[in-house]
Amino acid sequence: MVNKKQIRGVYLVTDRPLCIHHNLAEVVKLAALGGVSFVQLREKETDSRTFLELAKHLIEILRPFSIPLLINDRLDICLAAGAEGVHLGQSDLPWWEARRILGEQAILGLSLETKEDYFSLIHTHPKPELDYLAVSPVFDTNTKTNTKPAWGLMGVTWLKNQTNLPIVAIGGIKESNAEAVIEAGADSLAVVSAICSAKDPKLATENLSKKFHSIKE
Amino acid sequence: MVNKKQIRGVYLVTDRPLCIHHNLAEVVKLAALGGVSFVQLREKETDSRTFLELAKHLIEILRPFSIPLLINDRLDICLAAGAEGVHLGQSDLPWWEARRILGEQAILGLSLETKEDYFSLIHTHPKPELDYLAVSPVFDTNTKTNTKPAWGLMGVTWLKNQTNLPIVAIGGIKESNAEAVIEAGADSLAVVSAICSAKDPKLATENLSKKFHSIKE
Repeated sequence: MVNKKQIRGVYLVTDRPLCIHHNLAEVVKLAALGGVSFVQLREKETDSRTFLELAKHLIEILRPFSIPLLINDRLDICLAAGAEGVHLGQSDLPWWEARRILGEQAILGLSLETKEDYFSLIHTHPKPELDYLAVSPVFDTNTKTNTKPAWGLMGVTWLKNQTNLPIVAIGGIKESNAEAVIEAGADSLAVVSAICSAKDPKLATENLSKKFHSIKE
Repeated sequence: MVNKKQIRGVYLVTDRPLCIHHNLAEVVKLAALGGVSFVQLREKETDSRTFLELAKHLIEILRPFSIPLLINDRLDICLAAGAEGVHLGQSDLPWWEARRILGEQAILGLSLETKEDYFSLIHTHPKPELDYLAVSPVFDTNTKTNTKPAWGLMGVTWLKNQTNLPIVAIGGIKESNAEAVIEAGADSLAVVSAICSAKDPKLATENLSKKFHSIKE
């Protein structure tokens, strides 16, 4: 079982169409070898059967490394595959329903798109049973559509100062801005194309991972 | 709790774009007043939050009538909403995973598109823990894409003779062919447009429901 207090480091969010040099399984394996801390399987167009098979395959790859797999949105895929948790957006199932269904051991993360999302969260649940909050997006990005205006680095710092929960930053993060995002307060950097589309996903993961060591250790 | 042995009668499968004269909730309410036996909420394009809200709303409508709501494909929506069961297709989660997750009280139905689907089912599970098998499609239809060749009436009779499980027929069923489908062996008639697009969904449901009385009682 993952120690929930250690949500930190590089967090790969998958996107199969962006896996241009290697297939999904290869990207995930290489990211694991490069020291990725978490992987989130995100599939928006796939049928449930294929989604489940992908999840099971990624768990086979990740479990020897003790790297948790989270599933985007779909609790049922998480339950059927035996994944470690779920990442929820604002249009997904309510996180408290997810917590009730998955139990307290599951890793549960929630994306916040605006400060209002945060206020609305703590208004109803001053101590939400969540394992991290994701600032989404930190920077503008092409990999996700319909997102609200970017939080920026000051948004990361703002959220870090509001909560004791670990902060995952997502959206437009790459090697060149990673240090600034960590310094702004991110405990974890979620990346999509910076690893999925990299010619060398292992090296890309290592380089992002080093940013944590150079700053915080 | 529904008596699983009584899977019989008119089974409404929802399709919001086909609800042209009334909205979804009105169609479901009118179908309930017309004597529908089961309702399946099918949403293929909707985000999870909206799907859940629709499910909860339909449960509010149906529970006073003791009419079970089934969810198409999504176990997580079923669990979060507290619906009575799930209908699974061949590209959805495996039914045995669904049974494990939902427990034995849930209503669980499986669509068979071909005789091979049936043989493959009983090859691995001679006594599958399913509550019905759906013959899909009985007739060619425009409401579902990518379906295999229609089973026809002889297909319904063939499946009825293979199994003790209740048979739900779906695909192209309307008032004019309903009797023939029941006589061929269907225990339940699943309809989409015949109720969703009806000017009078209550009357449409009553007329379909009468076919069971005129034949089997």
